Amino acid sequence: MTARKMRLGLSIRGHGYHPAAWRHPDVPADGTLHVEHYVRSAQTAERGKLDMIFFADGAGIRQGDTPRGSLARTGRDMVELEPMTLLPALAMVTSHVGLVTTASTTYNEPYNLARKFATLDLISKGRAGWNVVASWSELEAQNFGLETTLDYDTRYARSAEFVEVVKGLWDSWDDGALVFDKAGGRYFDEAKMHVLDHQGRFFKVRGPLNVAGMPQGHPVIVQAGASEQGRELGAATAEVIYAISSSLDGARAYYADVKGRMAKYGREPDDLKIMPALCPVVGRTRAEAQAKYDELQALWDPLAGLGSLYGTFGDLSGYPLDGPLPEGVLGSGEIRSLSAQLVERMRREKPTIRELYLRAGITGSARIGTSADIADTMQEWFEAAACDGFNITPATLPGGGEDFVELVVPELQRRGLFRTEYEGRTLRENLGLRAVTSRYRRERQAAD
Amino acid sequence: MTARKMRLGLSIRGHGYHPAAWRHPDVPADGTLHVEHYVRSAQTAERGKLDMIFFADGAGIRQGDTPRGSLARTGRDMVELEPMTLLPALAMVTSHVGLVTTASTTYNEPYNLARKFATLDLISKGRAGWNVVASWSELEAQNFGLETTLDYDTRYARSAEFVEVVKGLWDSWDDGALVFDKAGGRYFDEAKMHVLDHQGRFFKVRGPLNVAGMPQGHPVIVQAGASEQGRELGAATAEVIYAISSSLDGARAYYADVKGRMAKYGREPDDLKIMPALCPVVGRTRAEAQAKYDELQALWDPLAGLGSLYGTFGDLSGYPLDGPLPEGVLGSGEIRSLSAQLVERMRREKPTIRELYLRAGITGSARIGTSADIADTMQEWFEAAACDGFNITPATLPGGGEDFVELVVPELQRRGLFRTEYEGRTLRENLGLRAVTSRYRRERQAAD
Repeated sequence: MTARKMRLGLSIRGHGYHPAAWRHPDVPADGTLHVEHYVRSAQTAERGKLDMIFFADGAGIRQGDTPRGSLARTGRDMVELEPMTLLPALAMVTSHVGLVTTASTTYNEPYNLARKFATLDLISKGRAGWNVVASWSELEAQNFGLETTLDYDTRYARSAEFVEVVKGLWDSWDDGALVFDKAGGRYFDEAKMHVLDHQGRFFKVRGPLNVAGMPQGHPVIVQAGASEQGRELGAATAEVIYAISSSLDGARAYYADVKGRMAKYGREPDDLKIMPALCPVVGRTRAEAQAKYDELQALWDPLAGLGSLYGTFGDLSGYPLDGPLPEGVLGSGEIRSLSAQLVERMRREKPTIRELYLRAGITGSARIGTSADIADTMQEWFEAAACDGFNITPATLPGGGEDFVELVVPELQRRGLFRTEYEGRTLRENLGLRAVTSRYRRERQAAD
Repeated sequence: MTARKMRLGLSIRGHGYHPAAWRHPDVPADGTLHVEHYVRSAQTAERGKLDMIFFADGAGIRQGDTPRGSLARTGRDMVELEPMTLLPALAMVTSHVGLVTTASTTYNEPYNLARKFATLDLISKGRAGWNVVASWSELEAQNFGLETTLDYDTRYARSAEFVEVVKGLWDSWDDGALVFDKAGGRYFDEAKMHVLDHQGRFFKVRGPLNVAGMPQGHPVIVQAGASEQGRELGAATAEVIYAISSSLDGARAYYADVKGRMAKYGREPDDLKIMPALCPVVGRTRAEAQAKYDELQALWDPLAGLGSLYGTFGDLSGYPLDGPLPEGVLGSGEIRSLSAQLVERMRREKPTIRELYLRAGITGSARIGTSADIADTMQEWFEAAACDGFNITPATLPGGGEDFVELVVPELQRRGLFRTEYEGRTLRENLGLRAVTSRYRRERQAAD
């Protein structure tokens, strides 16, 4: 018996999460530039009663042409619609699903983002969410007058202050501030309008915001955050964490750690939903699911594969694809994003270069099997206190999202793990998050 | 016989252009926060076959509470949906009308705006336009870490460079650059992708843009620009000028001046459409039209009126409303936005303070009368080489826009001055502007 329900999001990333997805026969290679492609996946998510759709984003192409010629063979994250501009369009053709997009605290101004998310919340009648990122890519930085990214601590500090300013602006107008008194000629009640007058390390922002009356009060705050600082910031301020966990044990430890940090910020564990990425590859049989996965893996272009390894291992184009990593690579300082555990395993297993890039795509979060297999894994994680739900990162779009909604969602519903109807009108209500109390009401309450 | 047709836009500003419009019984005072309010006016414009809808914008409330208490009695430009986020929503419920919004070159980054307008152009299938402004308000500046605005020359120089960077980013991908060759594994043709590598006085932007394939190539560039620098920049780069002209003679002189400056930039006069603002107050009889206007003028709140005069005359709250301006005001340095002519007239006519704020609203661009009267004026201006069409700035919304479309448009159509069906699919086509040639194709053509 499970009264607690999973939270589910559908991540709509270009052609899907498999790096070669654009080459799949069912995937429209030009879909990322057409609104219809995104409309279809958004409506699929809503048909499945999912909590939200989610957009990753980068302000630029974040992969270089290294090795030479690899970029032109890479279709992932190249050209696509900008999600903050896309979401209002999707708001008009959906009515319940939450609309969450990434927006950078490094390459935006808080006043602009506060207005945009407030507007999205109004247009969507309370379905907006903001995935706060501080942006890591050097190639993005070069689109904004910088040689390279801000250092890690500065980025994080700026990001934390940015979110505080945005929330302050969202609080500009108390409930009941807008009186619209036509007869008396009073548009608003001055006592309920707040000028923020923020002056901090990174920002100086007067306010008030020139948008008011957002159905959610504040759009939902989403974060990633696997690092020490990311975990702490998430515990302090996130309402959803988009987690990346490849093992059940790792996910349980992460979940306990982050939830355990919340009390000192006066927050209940349930004020934050932790949702790891999951890439389901579903078949009617296990063999069919495996065949789907194999078909995608066969679409990897070797040069695109070398491009995907470049950031971690450097240029491997001079070495045989079916040979091992060159001597020294695993011992050098170049192993950037890999855990010590993973490096140790690689030293032991000695994968070929081709094997390495084949693993680089969706493998970490993939679950390959029947809908029952995938529901089993999800149930196991959910009941083992490893998560509050999942962000589904389909291998292909629109097909991967449709498979999940048509095959796995009904199985989760049968097991009583997932809703059969939306409970609320807003994203915040559907996620089971409490209503927002503005800083001014909190102050008044504290003073009473 | 007139083969040449007028271009018409509908400016959708909050409650309408009359400062007291929010108090009118037919105007929803809370409409500026509801997407339905804007949908209704956008669909009205499309029903009338108008070229475009147009949004003014400010990144903040640009009026201070001076004199004290005046702000709470002012409904215009207080809280409203942010237009760059609103337009994609409107794109989904219209199919022909152009979608133009203001966006500031002072408080944005070129890479972000280039992405957003490119995305809007794709979502709307070629209907995006950008009204380039450099932002003049001190209160806006204070929402972005500045004490006051940049000086005039710096703002203009930055704005001109900003537009060049954005256009360069829009040219990132030549026609045919995206090959989508699934079998061969080639997503794009490297020879047709351009890294901008802009390094200028204000901006350093690498590129390429991560959006491609915009139906218009470039969204349409709109500018205002009454000053010397504004006229020159308009002649050099604008495709539409939103003009403010209160007399036929003034409009003719402006039109001849700006069009005359274009040849030295290698442009034909018809590459730029000059569209002054016109606020039609329409009645079935002249008496009915005048009554409509009088009803609106009676809704002016005196304190809001004093607020509207503050920027020009300073605080007049200590003087009788029905008395003249205090001694010295018209001689002092405080007369900011007024022409010498106007100051001279005021010295002669000695208006009361109340008369002054009553004139401060829509009076300059208002035409009050029957649909035939208004069409007469429009025809006179159009045929006297004073304009290429008009930006309709309705006194109230949605009613003022509906009156224009239902009463005046049919009259213009009967006279052969305005289209009865859209000619093209894109805003650029409907405005009769030529297709954009990217800088790289121009270079190749020049080299041939």
